[in-house]
Amino acid sequence: MSRLKTIEWAGNAVRIVDQTCLPAKLCYEDITTVEVMFEAIRALRVRGAPAIGIAAGFGMYLAVREFPETGSVRDFLTLFEKNIDYLAGARPTAVNLSWALQRVKTRIAGLAEKETSASLKRAVFDEAQAMLEEDRASGRAIGEHGFGLLKDCETILTHCNAGGLATAEFGTALAPVYVAAERNKKLHVYSDETRPLLQGSRITAFELKAAGIPVTVLCDNAAASLLRKKTVDAVIVGADRIASNGDVANKIGTYGLALAARAAQVPFYVAAPLSTFDPSLATGNEIPIEERDDAEVTCGFGRRTAPEGVDVYNPAFDVTPHDLVTALITEKGVLRPPYGEAIRKALQG
Amino acid sequence: MSRLKTIEWAGNAVRIVDQTCLPAKLCYEDITTVEVMFEAIRALRVRGAPAIGIAAGFGMYLAVREFPETGSVRDFLTLFEKNIDYLAGARPTAVNLSWALQRVKTRIAGLAEKETSASLKRAVFDEAQAMLEEDRASGRAIGEHGFGLLKDCETILTHCNAGGLATAEFGTALAPVYVAAERNKKLHVYSDETRPLLQGSRITAFELKAAGIPVTVLCDNAAASLLRKKTVDAVIVGADRIASNGDVANKIGTYGLALAARAAQVPFYVAAPLSTFDPSLATGNEIPIEERDDAEVTCGFGRRTAPEGVDVYNPAFDVTPHDLVTALITEKGVLRPPYGEAIRKALQG
Repeated sequence: MSRLKTIEWAGNAVRIVDQTCLPAKLCYEDITTVEVMFEAIRALRVRGAPAIGIAAGFGMYLAVREFPETGSVRDFLTLFEKNIDYLAGARPTAVNLSWALQRVKTRIAGLAEKETSASLKRAVFDEAQAMLEEDRASGRAIGEHGFGLLKDCETILTHCNAGGLATAEFGTALAPVYVAAERNKKLHVYSDETRPLLQGSRITAFELKAAGIPVTVLCDNAAASLLRKKTVDAVIVGADRIASNGDVANKIGTYGLALAARAAQVPFYVAAPLSTFDPSLATGNEIPIEERDDAEVTCGFGRRTAPEGVDVYNPAFDVTPHDLVTALITEKGVLRPPYGEAIRKALQG
Repeated sequence: MSRLKTIEWAGNAVRIVDQTCLPAKLCYEDITTVEVMFEAIRALRVRGAPAIGIAAGFGMYLAVREFPETGSVRDFLTLFEKNIDYLAGARPTAVNLSWALQRVKTRIAGLAEKETSASLKRAVFDEAQAMLEEDRASGRAIGEHGFGLLKDCETILTHCNAGGLATAEFGTALAPVYVAAERNKKLHVYSDETRPLLQGSRITAFELKAAGIPVTVLCDNAAASLLRKKTVDAVIVGADRIASNGDVANKIGTYGLALAARAAQVPFYVAAPLSTFDPSLATGNEIPIEERDDAEVTCGFGRRTAPEGVDVYNPAFDVTPHDLVTALITEKGVLRPPYGEAIRKALQG
């Protein structure tokens, strides 16, 4: 049993875990063209903001690697730009996708004047590989800091998938669990199934089971009474965006979970890299909340579960006010209230 | 558009709404034999504690109605007893089933000495019909008292199905909504889908839509953030058992919803007939909580949604402590804290 490698360079191809097969089976897919990478991102075969960014980086390498060694820099850049635009359209709303493409673009822009097309090609690969390694390092650092917080815990509860399958390897909320396992401390993880898309039961349970970590799945609505029974030592979740005051946007259901943790006097931790913090937002009230397709709720399992034509409320995220958050776990350490000051310092340092 | 008749006597048969067809279609089934009634209860074609009790009562009439008018009382009683035992096995854990059978039995025991088999047969029918009518009357009374509480509300939120389809017609939590509709006040109802069995999206949404009442379905985990937005004026749910101190056992997820209502300062009402109160229990801690089959969580939609062999926590109910309950709505009126005294008086009066 070991941690899954969500995405990696496998000599001649990008190897991904095809997440649409989970939990029925574990399929790896070797991707050798940018067109197949586009489709893998679009169809959620690779998902999770950090993983999508890395996939886009390697996708750019796949797009240019057949460019002739003797070709001109100008022709290289034409091909490069065309594919930047192409990949950006795979999931137009995924911020990390455009962030990663921008990063590759900036790297190439800084080199183009004085380089050959061969060295530019290499630079695209190196940038993708760098993003992957930075993500791993950031995950490990979050894991180490989080492990410090959880070292007296035996049982934790998480929501959605903020694990290795959303990133290159360690994840955010699950990173401390993996670090603990390396040190022969097996935390028992309760995983909310996380309606409507069931990332908790499909993906979190799968990756923990694959890593030999004990995991129990429950419906989201059973978490509050589980916490009330005092059988969970801590709640730990990821984040999609964190405002300057520490308000946290994360997968729908996180706020209710934070209320239940507070009522049971169980610590509520949020694990996220500093790239998740948005200093342009004063509070969580300013974070836009995406509402998604009705069909995720009314026939999300291939069968109709609500009457035809019924109205649906299906927000993808909610906002947990900072006063319900015990600590924020970042790659630069654990941030405690008052969050305004702690976040400012972490982002500056 | 009108309220559905969950169960009624249709001249020569018991007509039920077959709830296993919901929400795809509305099917009525005319049941003419006790064997088919047994199977309808066992397979959840008729469900909800009060409705099951009524179904069992009419099932007993179906069992004896072909008994010859000239037959002996002794032979009648043999047939009667055999079928009491038979029906009790349809869902051995449903308290209302044995309660209803006991009630029919007591009625017959009080008569047997001096009656003919023809009049005993009639008494079985009358008792079933009486249970149905009492349930309707109790639902209407709960509806009237609840309407008084909700008369300034525009939008309410409910969980699971404590509507007409769990009873003869009005339901408990939804009874005030139906009474309001009769008076041309259309409350907008948010209905939690209620994992794992989705009674909220399959059944509550269906019966409200059929009655022309506006309804919006949401995943259970979206209720807390909806409440935080202050767009809901009250939460109203049913109950499976209420202890002497007002602690409420109800469908899993009710406790988390009560916490979210409290955080948003939204009133949290519980509607239930007095037969739901259990004076033998001092607090909710003594209420046994049924844990159900893993498969409801891991493949409840005909498709596997969690890895094979994963552990599952699947309690069917939770307990909401009385201090989170704003009021209890019964057929004898609205009970307010301190509940110990209010409940004692209502049960005595």
